[in-house]
Amino acid sequence: MQATQTEKQVRHGKARSMKALVFRGKHQIGLEEVPIPRPGYGEVVIRVTLTTICGTDLHIVRGEYPVKPGLILGHEPVGVIHEIAPGVTGYKVGERVLVGAITPCGQCNLCLSGNWSQCGGPIGGWKFGNTIHGAQAEYLLVPHAQANLAKIPDNLADEHVVLLADIASTGFSAAESADLKLGDTVAVFAQGPIGLCATAGARLKGAGLIIGVESDPVRQEFARSMGAQVVVNHEKVDVVEEIQRLTHRRGVDVAIEALGTQATFENALKVLRPGGTLSSLGVYSGKLSVPLEPFAAGLGDHKIVTTLCPGGKERMRRLIELVERGRVDLRMLLTHQFALDNIVEAYELFGERRDGVIKVAIKP
Amino acid sequence: MQATQTEKQVRHGKARSMKALVFRGKHQIGLEEVPIPRPGYGEVVIRVTLTTICGTDLHIVRGEYPVKPGLILGHEPVGVIHEIAPGVTGYKVGERVLVGAITPCGQCNLCLSGNWSQCGGPIGGWKFGNTIHGAQAEYLLVPHAQANLAKIPDNLADEHVVLLADIASTGFSAAESADLKLGDTVAVFAQGPIGLCATAGARLKGAGLIIGVESDPVRQEFARSMGAQVVVNHEKVDVVEEIQRLTHRRGVDVAIEALGTQATFENALKVLRPGGTLSSLGVYSGKLSVPLEPFAAGLGDHKIVTTLCPGGKERMRRLIELVERGRVDLRMLLTHQFALDNIVEAYELFGERRDGVIKVAIKP
Amino acid sequence: MQATQTEKQVRHGKARSMKALVFRGKHQIGLEEVPIPRPGYGEVVIRVTLTTICGTDLHIVRGEYPVKPGLILGHEPVGVIHEIAPGVTGYKVGERVLVGAITPCGQCNLCLSGNWSQCGGPIGGWKFGNTIHGAQAEYLLVPHAQANLAKIPDNLADEHVVLLADIASTGFSAAESADLKLGDTVAVFAQGPIGLCATAGARLKGAGLIIGVESDPVRQEFARSMGAQVVVNHEKVDVVEEIQRLTHRRGVDVAIEALGTQATFENALKVLRPGGTLSSLGVYSGKLSVPLEPFAAGLGDHKIVTTLCPGGKERMRRLIELVERGRVDLRMLLTHQFALDNIVEAYELFGERRDGVIKVAIKP
Amino acid sequence: MQATQTEKQVRHGKARSMKALVFRGKHQIGLEEVPIPRPGYGEVVIRVTLTTICGTDLHIVRGEYPVKPGLILGHEPVGVIHEIAPGVTGYKVGERVLVGAITPCGQCNLCLSGNWSQCGGPIGGWKFGNTIHGAQAEYLLVPHAQANLAKIPDNLADEHVVLLADIASTGFSAAESADLKLGDTVAVFAQGPIGLCATAGARLKGAGLIIGVESDPVRQEFARSMGAQVVVNHEKVDVVEEIQRLTHRRGVDVAIEALGTQATFENALKVLRPGGTLSSLGVYSGKLSVPLEPFAAGLGDHKIVTTLCPGGKERMRRLIELVERGRVDLRMLLTHQFALDNIVEAYELFGERRDGVIKVAIKP
Repeated sequence: MQATQTEKQVRHGKARSMKALVFRGKHQIGLEEVPIPRPGYGEVVIRVTLTTICGTDLHIVRGEYPVKPGLILGHEPVGVIHEIAPGVTGYKVGERVLVGAITPCGQCNLCLSGNWSQCGGPIGGWKFGNTIHGAQAEYLLVPHAQANLAKIPDNLADEHVVLLADIASTGFSAAESADLKLGDTVAVFAQGPIGLCATAGARLKGAGLIIGVESDPVRQEFARSMGAQVVVNHEKVDVVEEIQRLTHRRGVDVAIEALGTQATFENALKVLRPGGTLSSLGVYSGKLSVPLEPFAAGLGDHKIVTTLCPGGKERMRRLIELVERGRVDLRMLLTHQFALDNIVEAYELFGERRDGVIKVAIKP
Repeated sequence: MQATQTEKQVRHGKARSMKALVFRGKHQIGLEEVPIPRPGYGEVVIRVTLTTICGTDLHIVRGEYPVKPGLILGHEPVGVIHEIAPGVTGYKVGERVLVGAITPCGQCNLCLSGNWSQCGGPIGGWKFGNTIHGAQAEYLLVPHAQANLAKIPDNLADEHVVLLADIASTGFSAAESADLKLGDTVAVFAQGPIGLCATAGARLKGAGLIIGVESDPVRQEFARSMGAQVVVNHEKVDVVEEIQRLTHRRGVDVAIEALGTQATFENALKVLRPGGTLSSLGVYSGKLSVPLEPFAAGLGDHKIVTTLCPGGKERMRRLIELVERGRVDLRMLLTHQFALDNIVEAYELFGERRDGVIKVAIKP
Repeated sequence: MQATQTEKQVRHGKARSMKALVFRGKHQIGLEEVPIPRPGYGEVVIRVTLTTICGTDLHIVRGEYPVKPGLILGHEPVGVIHEIAPGVTGYKVGERVLVGAITPCGQCNLCLSGNWSQCGGPIGGWKFGNTIHGAQAEYLLVPHAQANLAKIPDNLADEHVVLLADIASTGFSAAESADLKLGDTVAVFAQGPIGLCATAGARLKGAGLIIGVESDPVRQEFARSMGAQVVVNHEKVDVVEEIQRLTHRRGVDVAIEALGTQATFENALKVLRPGGTLSSLGVYSGKLSVPLEPFAAGLGDHKIVTTLCPGGKERMRRLIELVERGRVDLRMLLTHQFALDNIVEAYELFGERRDGVIKVAIKP
Repeated sequence: MQATQTEKQVRHGKARSMKALVFRGKHQIGLEEVPIPRPGYGEVVIRVTLTTICGTDLHIVRGEYPVKPGLILGHEPVGVIHEIAPGVTGYKVGERVLVGAITPCGQCNLCLSGNWSQCGGPIGGWKFGNTIHGAQAEYLLVPHAQANLAKIPDNLADEHVVLLADIASTGFSAAESADLKLGDTVAVFAQGPIGLCATAGARLKGAGLIIGVESDPVRQEFARSMGAQVVVNHEKVDVVEEIQRLTHRRGVDVAIEALGTQATFENALKVLRPGGTLSSLGVYSGKLSVPLEPFAAGLGDHKIVTTLCPGGKERMRRLIELVERGRVDLRMLLTHQFALDNIVEAYELFGERRDGVIKVAIKP
């Protein structure tokens, strides 16, 4: 049987434990010293070289999304292959890889239906920092490694690709799931990290007019950089009326919801043309209601589609390709950088949206 | 310029007026003597030989859907071409035709986007008995006739095709809009006329297990005839639990809502697998709310699609083809027949769902 | 580590070798005694209870498709789980399973693109009896078992499902890959085992008129049973002219090629309407040429799509569902049955198309 | 009845005839004085303000594509509405409009199937300069005007939009018909006017690596401007081998044929990955053959799709939107300009590909 391959420092006993951001309960997170994971059959351990904090991590810390205390958080890893267990072929220790936030097995009925993000059951593809230990640590065990390790070309830095693991894959998927057509008019509600990537995705997929909805001046500026030709400030104007005006009362072909609130969902529907698609990325809490008139009482040939971040190594390869070929550059969204040692501080800044933060780079 | 062609009796002055079911206000309908319509350029008048009453007509009569007083109701016409104005080619007076409930122009931006049912604007393809005079009359003016007259083969009777105009086209569209795959498991909520056709449509499109949801014993029986292998009585069992049991906890791939209520919409979502599609045909009134847990808080890769009855002569031609080739036979759904003279009586029977009625045939 | 589970007779040393049909070179096949395979990590060995012979096997025996001498042939296995290696979960020794002819890994870039049949590279999903030992034996090693074992419900016999592994999955895929629409007119060129299943698939997907093309009277009769309302004998009439006549010069929406010859490919294109799809299942040998006029010199908005048999356990589960729910019954295509001991005889009968043979059941 | 509206000079008898480029037979074209057309019901006459010459026009002049002698050539019109017959609503005399090369009726069975370019029959949507008088004239009669007049925003010049009528609509459609996915690798064979727009279309639709194939240095440079990151000179290197090298032996996801020759078609297939799509825009002459090995003998899950230029006013509106929103600028492809008076000279330059010509602007 093929022997496990590993980096020297572990093989030679130089490292047995690592630092990791551990969730202990509502508002209780801290850096802890924990054992370095060892891979079982079909698994790989990577040494994390860059990661980040996601809005979902904030939900967890605030107790709004339940995970087991003791869990290492984080789901956006770039790293170097550290240890390869048997059953994984085509990889070598020391190779740089990107791993998606979603790590499908590829072999269950849902994966084999093409619903990779729902691997094994609802939201089942999301494992890191949700059902297994996550990426805000020095080392990370990657399950189903054969399906989930995407090699990074030498000419790209970690910073080029780290945001592909989640926000780019999620954001871009809005236009993809909506099956956006050449020349479509698109409105993107909220220009946070996901919304900005949704804006970039609408541009990548061939939208004509892209309207960003955002009140924060910093994010408005980013929205323009990502492709919005017009940014509407919903705190200053009636956003539905303004979008109807901008579209000559046609409405938009695709409305993207990127916040997860009743107000944005409802406005997205209100600006949608008959036959249009509401592409929803937001994580909703509380009750969601569908206003009848914009929904044409169910007779408007509307579609409402939701998408959980697409993952797996082929998805990551394609996104890396877009970056490598100069089709998109997300580095500007990494507005801040922290050492892993200071990650708790990074959580505070990110959680309070201080200092124009969009995303923080965390370097172990 | 091409002369208008017409049937003899009108040309020779034998007929100038006709009987028609006219809406005069909430709960006020009656048979009236009105002028026979004359076609303008691009239009055709048909002599109606068979029509029917739709649930939507009941909504109108009950004041739940607003139309202008004075309107002739009905949108499901089979007839004989009576008068052809210039601008319509390829048809002859005397030919038997089916006209869809939806009569798109084919030339506006929405039609040219493939959104024929939304011709000109929201729900704009639905003209008969909504924005122009309808089919519960001896004669009917067909707008955009070039796009809307489907010839009926000699070997088919009016009864073979009259239900294609609306309920079959609508019902079948549920599976089509859901992009139903071979072997999909499907649940159809409510087995009224539309739901029965949705059941037939799921079978036609290649579903595996089809579960009908219905409490009325007569409709349960029809559901089995249309293709449901299992019928669940939601008044006797917990329908969500029962469908989960029947699907071994997988849930259904496609859930079809064919009633237009919060309860059926919600149950449809509750039995839907991750990555599944809720295909909605119902006309909703009152607020519609989306339960969060079955919606996976927006992370379940679900789709919700709504469809307004597809129309136009090509749609009708295809549906006629299905009937002609023995793929579907809907005649059994015409449980009752009335002369146009007795249509008010037919409205009563249909409105009160007496006597196991599914659809009533109205013969002018 | 999880211990390997196995059936008793092997564990107790009662069986070490098995009979298998081994290919030794052009026109050289024979039953041999070979070792029973043992599964490695992630693999399973099944005891084959029913299999069959495919036209592709004939190609191999005739030297028209190259495989390595020494290979056990066959790729259509039904069996009982005999030995499970570690790395496979959710299965028990003794369970009855169907395995597709195509056994994708689910984890390579092509699988993760949804191109499961092209697993790892061109035609790479086809492993059994092509690149690894096949199913015409008493035991069969199943690679990537987690992705490829579909359980068979107790109420179905082996005979109900054995043809799903290849000919049904392939045949049905013609209509699926063509994205056949409700009411489409379809022509299926050649009514051999694959063509008959293509006919059944066109019916399952909602075709209107289905025209089978076939000269053999036995197969013509089967074609009618599978759903063809009309069968055209290309040896008696000009098949292109006849199909144009039957379709009132519209041509067909979908033309299915199920033989793999220039003549059938060309005729399929000749009867295709503008905007129609030629769905090709045939394995071609020799040069294939595209006639310009029916191809409208490249301006006809035509599509030509080819499909290799879809595999994997989810595909098999869906096909089993269709059989279990009474949507299709292919048992009549198993016209003959042989013991594995007499498989060489079965090859002869099948190869010479004697005695109205469609498919032969082989029982180890 | 609504009166015909028209520009003053005609109404007042100031203009009765116009100049037009008339085809009289092989290699016989010339400017002639012909009557200004008058619109019938549903038609409009526009005063042409800008048009161009297409490669197809050259085919006609060379006798390679047959049209009736006496026909005015050209199918790429920008103009001002000159006369409106009854039956056309929403337009005014004097408005600037773009009309697509393809002018579907929107009301026949093929249009109502979404096959607008095949309006009425094979290639039937292409009317201008093919079956009715074309755009290389001072005035042009537009059939089915309601479906075919796209208004031009004031902020765009004729030069911004004239190439949308044909080459942009055709070129972009290659990626659309191939259903190009985000991050796809694409090769575009030949970088003439259509190929350059196909390159731009691949970029617009979200391709990663785009490889142009072209030997002409001027066109190579244009290819880079349109989005090709790499241009391969097929006269200098083995183009198949080079593309395999550039794609690390994966092959391309989408291969676009934009010339119409056996060599480019064959190479497109040779570089295609399993499961990939060959999107063909070329007009072929002579026999086209499919090489078996790259076609995987029909087992490669390949698609070959052909597309005739999409037309109609909604298509034009969308393309105009792309230009107006800064998503694409094709003006640089208008390398030369001629007065209509000198159009014969323009034909010579264009036909001989002199002076780095890509497209010539013709101003009446």
